[in-house]
Amino acid sequence: MQSVEFYRDRFIAHLEKRIRVKEPVRLYEPISYILELGGKRLRPVLTLMTTSLFGGNHEKALDAALAIEVFHNFSLIHDDIMDAAPLRRGKTTVHEKWDVNTGILSGDAMLIKAYQFLESYDDSLSRRLFGLFSHTAIQVCEGQQYDMDFETSNRVTIAEYLKMIEYKTAVLVAAAMKMGAIIAGTSLENQNGIYEFGKHLGIAFQLQDDYLDAFGDADTFGKQVGGDIIENKKTFLYLKALELASPGAKKSLQDLYAVQPDDTLSKVKVVTSIFKESGAAKMTKQEIEAYTQKAYRILEHLEMPTAAKEVLAQFGKDLMYRQV
Amino acid sequence: MQSVEFYRDRFIAHLEKRIRVKEPVRLYEPISYILELGGKRLRPVLTLMTTSLFGGNHEKALDAALAIEVFHNFSLIHDDIMDAAPLRRGKTTVHEKWDVNTGILSGDAMLIKAYQFLESYDDSLSRRLFGLFSHTAIQVCEGQQYDMDFETSNRVTIAEYLKMIEYKTAVLVAAAMKMGAIIAGTSLENQNGIYEFGKHLGIAFQLQDDYLDAFGDADTFGKQVGGDIIENKKTFLYLKALELASPGAKKSLQDLYAVQPDDTLSKVKVVTSIFKESGAAKMTKQEIEAYTQKAYRILEHLEMPTAAKEVLAQFGKDLMYRQV
Repeated sequence: MQSVEFYRDRFIAHLEKRIRVKEPVRLYEPISYILELGGKRLRPVLTLMTTSLFGGNHEKALDAALAIEVFHNFSLIHDDIMDAAPLRRGKTTVHEKWDVNTGILSGDAMLIKAYQFLESYDDSLSRRLFGLFSHTAIQVCEGQQYDMDFETSNRVTIAEYLKMIEYKTAVLVAAAMKMGAIIAGTSLENQNGIYEFGKHLGIAFQLQDDYLDAFGDADTFGKQVGGDIIENKKTFLYLKALELASPGAKKSLQDLYAVQPDDTLSKVKVVTSIFKESGAAKMTKQEIEAYTQKAYRILEHLEMPTAAKEVLAQFGKDLMYRQV
Repeated sequence: MQSVEFYRDRFIAHLEKRIRVKEPVRLYEPISYILELGGKRLRPVLTLMTTSLFGGNHEKALDAALAIEVFHNFSLIHDDIMDAAPLRRGKTTVHEKWDVNTGILSGDAMLIKAYQFLESYDDSLSRRLFGLFSHTAIQVCEGQQYDMDFETSNRVTIAEYLKMIEYKTAVLVAAAMKMGAIIAGTSLENQNGIYEFGKHLGIAFQLQDDYLDAFGDADTFGKQVGGDIIENKKTFLYLKALELASPGAKKSLQDLYAVQPDDTLSKVKVVTSIFKESGAAKMTKQEIEAYTQKAYRILEHLEMPTAAKEVLAQFGKDLMYRQV
């Protein structure tokens, strides 16, 4: 079994070979720009690893991994427009560096390019990959819509929130792994099992992201700590705190989330202390642990060498104990 | 052979069956809205007709026709955002009725839905439809980019303009017909021939659109006559007039296209008279005729019953002599 770095390097080499700026330059330059901003390359690495772990050749999975990564970056460009975000991975977002129209159109072209990378496979394989890809892509759009709907709703439930992050984030991680399994030619049980593993890990990953946003180390987190609080995002932490906090603390929390005060520092301080004192922070940690454990239990039932399971378990641990 | 109205009705019935509003409503409502605004349904009718004309069952082509129409309407939503257009088919555009974010996200979902409609076909057929669809979709994006690039360029050539309208408009008409041919199971020669027919007809159609925009009858045209002139669009008429006009008229034309005067009526009047006097209007008519004739010559070489060819020739004539 190769290291995560090995797969990441192989993926980046493939990306650089397959993604080239051509005419019209204004359409293709932003595509290269966002794809070269880096990031963890989590999803494509998972595709390649999964193919290997199920006994396939990771080389065969490179184009599927690229489809997943290009789709993911398409969604980032369009989401950044919708959120009016100035920065992505510490660099200027596409719509800021160029303009909104460029972000829309280059994003559209990326979505189409993602499909084109799936043309590399034979009839039956490409059909299954196309089906999974479209099904997942629609869920990602629905997840983004729910996320936007929640901004103006005061009655978001925890179940709705979990569904939203499942759609917006987790299903793409799940599909990235299932594609790897499909390409390896493993059984349907294994394909569906690894999908469920990826989905649960993806939900844990997003809950961890929410947690780090409030409680991460400012030196290592990479984003502004407290960003979600400043933007009044109804994360798991917030919804759980509303459930658990004393009437007084609940009222303070709601009042703080109804405004955008200039003094963001003290807002973040008050809110995080409510998150802690109400027990919501602890419950979030427990929820992350519960999803991770669910993922591990699924892993146990897959037909895969023990050594391969250990690689995935380690990968999950690294994700969950990350500070970034 | 059935009438255009027959195919249009069959298509609309199919669309109404397949396109339903579901949760999240805010994502799916705009999709139903734009698809129900109407329009000529030119592309899906061509898909169904082509399948029939090559001896296939048009019922089998309904999902491909829907994919084409949904893609076309996706591109309208995103183009209307980019052009800040308030109206589409006389009704409020999606980004005006809802907002820009809704237009972006519902458009994205439509692009994915379009791919999903192509999943109805068997492995080998769907693979070919997917390939043609993606290839065409990327060209449409490139065409839109060229169109936007031309807004700020003063050195657009007629060849570049023709390439732009080929990509932005004609290839989708061509692909709509080729899909019908693929589904009918006709020869590769016929598939490629009908594609070329559709492409030439599509270019003629767009040149006719440009012509009507300047010289159409205000009572029947449906859009504001002179809209392209007011927006300083570098159409075939304009580029040809620059080529043919006297130095004085050329200077006037360039000066008028460098500004956005309040008195649009007299601008339109002066510009259309330059289009006429320079001979550009006549040359545009000739160009439309030339593309139409090229399309007809291609038609002659297709293996198809004479009656079927006559249907397509009549369809072309109706398009070319339309006032709308």
